[in-house]
Amino acid sequence: MMGVKVTLLKLYSYFLYTLHRLVQHFHRPSEVVSALKKKMRVFSYLNRAINGYPSCSKLLLVFSVSCGGLVAYADSQSDSGRHSVEPNQIEPRKKRVVVLGTGWAGTSFLKDLDVSSYDVQVVSPRNYFAFTPLLPSVTCGTVEARSIVEPVRKLVKKRGGDIHFSEAECLEIDAGNKKILCRSNFNENLVGNNEFFLEYDYLVIAVGSQVNTFNTPGVLEYCHFLKEIEDAQRIRETVIDCFEKAVLPGQSDEERMTNLHFVIVGGGPTGVEFAAELHDFVHEDLVYLYPTVKDLVKISVIQSGDHILNTFDERISSFAEQKFQRDGIDVLTGCRVVSVSDKLINLKVKSTGVDTSIPHGMVLWSTGVGTRPVVKDLMQQIGQGNRRILATDEWLRVKGCEDVYALGDCATVAQRKIMEDILSIFKAADKDNSGTLTIEEFKDVVEDIIIRYPQVELYLKRKHLFDVMDLLKDSSGNDRKEVDIEEFKLALCQVDSQVKSLPATAQVAAQQGAYLSGCFNHRERCKTNPEGPRRFRGSGRHEFRPFRYRHLGQFAPLGGEQAAAELPGDWVSLGRSTQWLWYSVYASKQVSWRTRVLVVFDWTKRFIFGRDSSRI
Amino acid sequence: MMGVKVTLLKLYSYFLYTLHRLVQHFHRPSEVVSALKKKMRVFSYLNRAINGYPSCSKLLLVFSVSCGGLVAYADSQSDSGRHSVEPNQIEPRKKRVVVLGTGWAGTSFLKDLDVSSYDVQVVSPRNYFAFTPLLPSVTCGTVEARSIVEPVRKLVKKRGGDIHFSEAECLEIDAGNKKILCRSNFNENLVGNNEFFLEYDYLVIAVGSQVNTFNTPGVLEYCHFLKEIEDAQRIRETVIDCFEKAVLPGQSDEERMTNLHFVIVGGGPTGVEFAAELHDFVHEDLVYLYPTVKDLVKISVIQSGDHILNTFDERISSFAEQKFQRDGIDVLTGCRVVSVSDKLINLKVKSTGVDTSIPHGMVLWSTGVGTRPVVKDLMQQIGQGNRRILATDEWLRVKGCEDVYALGDCATVAQRKIMEDILSIFKAADKDNSGTLTIEEFKDVVEDIIIRYPQVELYLKRKHLFDVMDLLKDSSGNDRKEVDIEEFKLALCQVDSQVKSLPATAQVAAQQGAYLSGCFNHRERCKTNPEGPRRFRGSGRHEFRPFRYRHLGQFAPLGGEQAAAELPGDWVSLGRSTQWLWYSVYASKQVSWRTRVLVVFDWTKRFIFGRDSSRI
Repeated sequence: MMGVKVTLLKLYSYFLYTLHRLVQHFHRPSEVVSALKKKMRVFSYLNRAINGYPSCSKLLLVFSVSCGGLVAYADSQSDSGRHSVEPNQIEPRKKRVVVLGTGWAGTSFLKDLDVSSYDVQVVSPRNYFAFTPLLPSVTCGTVEARSIVEPVRKLVKKRGGDIHFSEAECLEIDAGNKKILCRSNFNENLVGNNEFFLEYDYLVIAVGSQVNTFNTPGVLEYCHFLKEIEDAQRIRETVIDCFEKAVLPGQSDEERMTNLHFVIVGGGPTGVEFAAELHDFVHEDLVYLYPTVKDLVKISVIQSGDHILNTFDERISSFAEQKFQRDGIDVLTGCRVVSVSDKLINLKVKSTGVDTSIPHGMVLWSTGVGTRPVVKDLMQQIGQGNRRILATDEWLRVKGCEDVYALGDCATVAQRKIMEDILSIFKAADKDNSGTLTIEEFKDVVEDIIIRYPQVELYLKRKHLFDVMDLLKDSSGNDRKEVDIEEFKLALCQVDSQVKSLPATAQVAAQQGAYLSGCFNHRERCKTNPEGPRRFRGSGRHEFRPFRYRHLGQFAPLGGEQAAAELPGDWVSLGRSTQWLWYSVYASKQVSWRTRVLVVFDWTKRFIFGRDSSRI
Repeated sequence: MMGVKVTLLKLYSYFLYTLHRLVQHFHRPSEVVSALKKKMRVFSYLNRAINGYPSCSKLLLVFSVSCGGLVAYADSQSDSGRHSVEPNQIEPRKKRVVVLGTGWAGTSFLKDLDVSSYDVQVVSPRNYFAFTPLLPSVTCGTVEARSIVEPVRKLVKKRGGDIHFSEAECLEIDAGNKKILCRSNFNENLVGNNEFFLEYDYLVIAVGSQVNTFNTPGVLEYCHFLKEIEDAQRIRETVIDCFEKAVLPGQSDEERMTNLHFVIVGGGPTGVEFAAELHDFVHEDLVYLYPTVKDLVKISVIQSGDHILNTFDERISSFAEQKFQRDGIDVLTGCRVVSVSDKLINLKVKSTGVDTSIPHGMVLWSTGVGTRPVVKDLMQQIGQGNRRILATDEWLRVKGCEDVYALGDCATVAQRKIMEDILSIFKAADKDNSGTLTIEEFKDVVEDIIIRYPQVELYLKRKHLFDVMDLLKDSSGNDRKEVDIEEFKLALCQVDSQVKSLPATAQVAAQQGAYLSGCFNHRERCKTNPEGPRRFRGSGRHEFRPFRYRHLGQFAPLGGEQAAAELPGDWVSLGRSTQWLWYSVYASKQVSWRTRVLVVFDWTKRFIFGRDSSRI
């Protein structure tokens, strides 16, 4: 025992000593990391060892595929500095960009922004970026909260430029006077003013969403949510509380069962992942520490639709339902939550209209996204007051005001319908003003149409048409030489049915941030050399190509080292290997080497020691 | 870049795969760990490599010394189960032991207790044990909070027995009726009663202390403390808050300086270690992230005595003061804090009586320990109401009530003075009732005297006497054949000056816990075969030897990879190597392999990536 301990400590000492020498040699951690990486290559002979195991090589194959397609975000940092200019040259006053929020959208925008040509101010109530897809893992201690956050200052420091960050919340956007009011939320003991104004030339709103209770009574008071790090930490404490309460002396079995009934409202990816994590936590760790109450634990998922994970492929949805059934997780579909009290959830079964009540120990409300007050207020100012969510055009510019951009969950892209512009398109395409469109004339504009109206491509794909010219065929499928305006309208009339709003996911937000920073970086160049499609209603071309979302797939971890994934090209992957794919992708998508190492260490730690049940 | 990533992930996959197979093979994490430990031995050839580095071998030499002397706590677990009996044999009703608290004393008691012969109930508001000596490291993120906690249930599960734990606070001890009232502090949404009574046959009070404000106004409202995990987490957030506030727009330099002034009241080990940690955090990490305010940061230590670390050796105290002076940490000695307000600390300089005020951003109050209300209440009941701290006898039994034991910071051992018993001792030793004591008669009782009154040994050591017989020499130093009562009194009259109360440290608490569990385990055996010293006032022998504290040394980390240590035998060790000794000892003293791995990983992480400045 003692011998092993000494040996281990010697090993550790040697390791630290080597590191110490490395650090003394290089002085900066990033250099140390790159030196370590080089050293790691020495171990690459292990590849061969791994290839000896068929299941591993399969995993790595899938992983390599995923590296090509899915790893988009983490690598964007390698582009950094590409557009930097010499700071010494004499410039006009830099334009002031104010960024609200440091979530996926805001951070992704900042990561690629050419900070040398803008004066950037970032305002967010949180001084860190959180890798939100791992939040469900934090609720049960599979991953630690601190392993999935990275300080914003560290992220922006990597960019080398002069970005100013203020830990404050934006209370009011004055779009007319181009300024915002912010307030910081510090302890009142600190001296100095907590409110300040910031003026902007461009405003980037990336404040995300808040929880949507659908005005259900009691939700705000008695439910947990899962949007912030603090939410996850609170859930973790509450789960432990429920168990500790259940083993206190003097409780009836009914009381114990109530306290150990965990209810999840909403069968989307977050709710399902939390249910799976909780099930693992209970059955892999807690039952051994609280053996007397292990048979009293119950987990229920309430879903208003007919299936859980209903935004996923049907195969995934039923795989998840079967897995949950085997695990003993109750899935109540077709139920609407009417109200929540401190001890009961009141439901209405949609099909029968019957009301029922369920006692609970903890409720997680994970359904829908709502608009934050500051955005609601802006919407009133700019004539979007009757909308549910802030609308931007396809270039992410907020509709109804100048120089304000919105990305991520707080806004939605209002895709222009092709039928609104059909006359202008026809007129622009019909160069000889003949009143009919020839194939050549159509070919001339078709690329611009596809760029401007992405629904055309979706429509073609859905109809299994391989050539856009097929649109102009007549009803019997024969090619036509030319079409008039009515025929043209008829050909395109169903295209707009493919317009869909983008999901409120990290993937969309990150892509939007990267897209917008590209626009900002090329603003000057694109003024003279526009790279967007032709303006059908006006003249000339748009400065930039509109934002186009590329869906790279989606994961649903289901617990017990099983996961489901929707991969590009309508692939569906299920089971244990998918969970390993999930590990690989989520490790590679981390925003820094620090969080990557920490997350991988957390997984390993859980594997060896289990999850911690300390109530902190 | 991508190549390295893939290689690393492959390595990781292989590692996890191996672990996975190990887990499948052994099924239980503890078995896996022991298997891993065996595998680790293979690497022991690395010892030779390490011995090639002179500085390392020095470290390891010191470490090996420390292993012998200092590593007492972590290894006590290897004794577990030594006294277990067959559970099937028919027994009378087991005695009920109720343990209050899961700190050092309580956990150490539980770790070695033979749970097969007692019905053990543990009550504590925290369901984990925290390795408190690392709390100052948690305040600045050098070590994570979760790395230094271990669930009580896990610790007791290792003992294999049936220990029942309740997460609740003891509100009232009814020593007359041998029962206690407890209340749990859960969310009110959970159903069931929060209060319950527990009856006991033996009560072990190990509730620790609370902060002592010395009735200074404003301390409770405006100061931070450092006794619990939550305190450390709050301090961490507040430090980041102070920096974030200082870089907000619209602050004057004076306001920034006020917010960045960190004041520590109390120059004991905790205060000094926090000041050092904070200095490192600021100068190794924060100045790079908040470069605009780096020259405005100030750290001050206020000490009422003339020196900081005044319980340590003088050399350590002045080494610390010099180190702090070089680091720019202000040390204000000889100052008493009169009151604290939200923005100012009001001081009185003791020597001149001048009042002065210091503006502050954060204050840590780390001076003195106070008695918890539940213990105060018990003291009233048992006639100790006019004492400052609960008194026990040398067997840790609370004075004034039956079957109640108290250990750790919540109590103090009231060592019996030898002069109180001097007549009885003389009478007991003087077997022939001659009125004089011969050397032989004295020799007969001297061992019992030394065991019963440890101050005798301390006195001999202090006077540099090597033989207890030297006490009986006459004033000119000549041996005497026999002494009468007056000469005997004179010989021992100065011995009691060596009675000192034990410090409120983890070391004392852990030793007391281990001692008491030994008493509990041997209770039956010692009833018939008492192993304690002779009862001088009564007849026969005491059942157990009284508790004897062995001081194993003390550390004071001073930041910048430097530390000071007081080692057994009046050794003093200073500087960088001492910091490495500190790492070794603190790693080896962890209560579980899990926390040991986590703490070592945290140190390594800090070494490579620095500390995290996210405000969570």
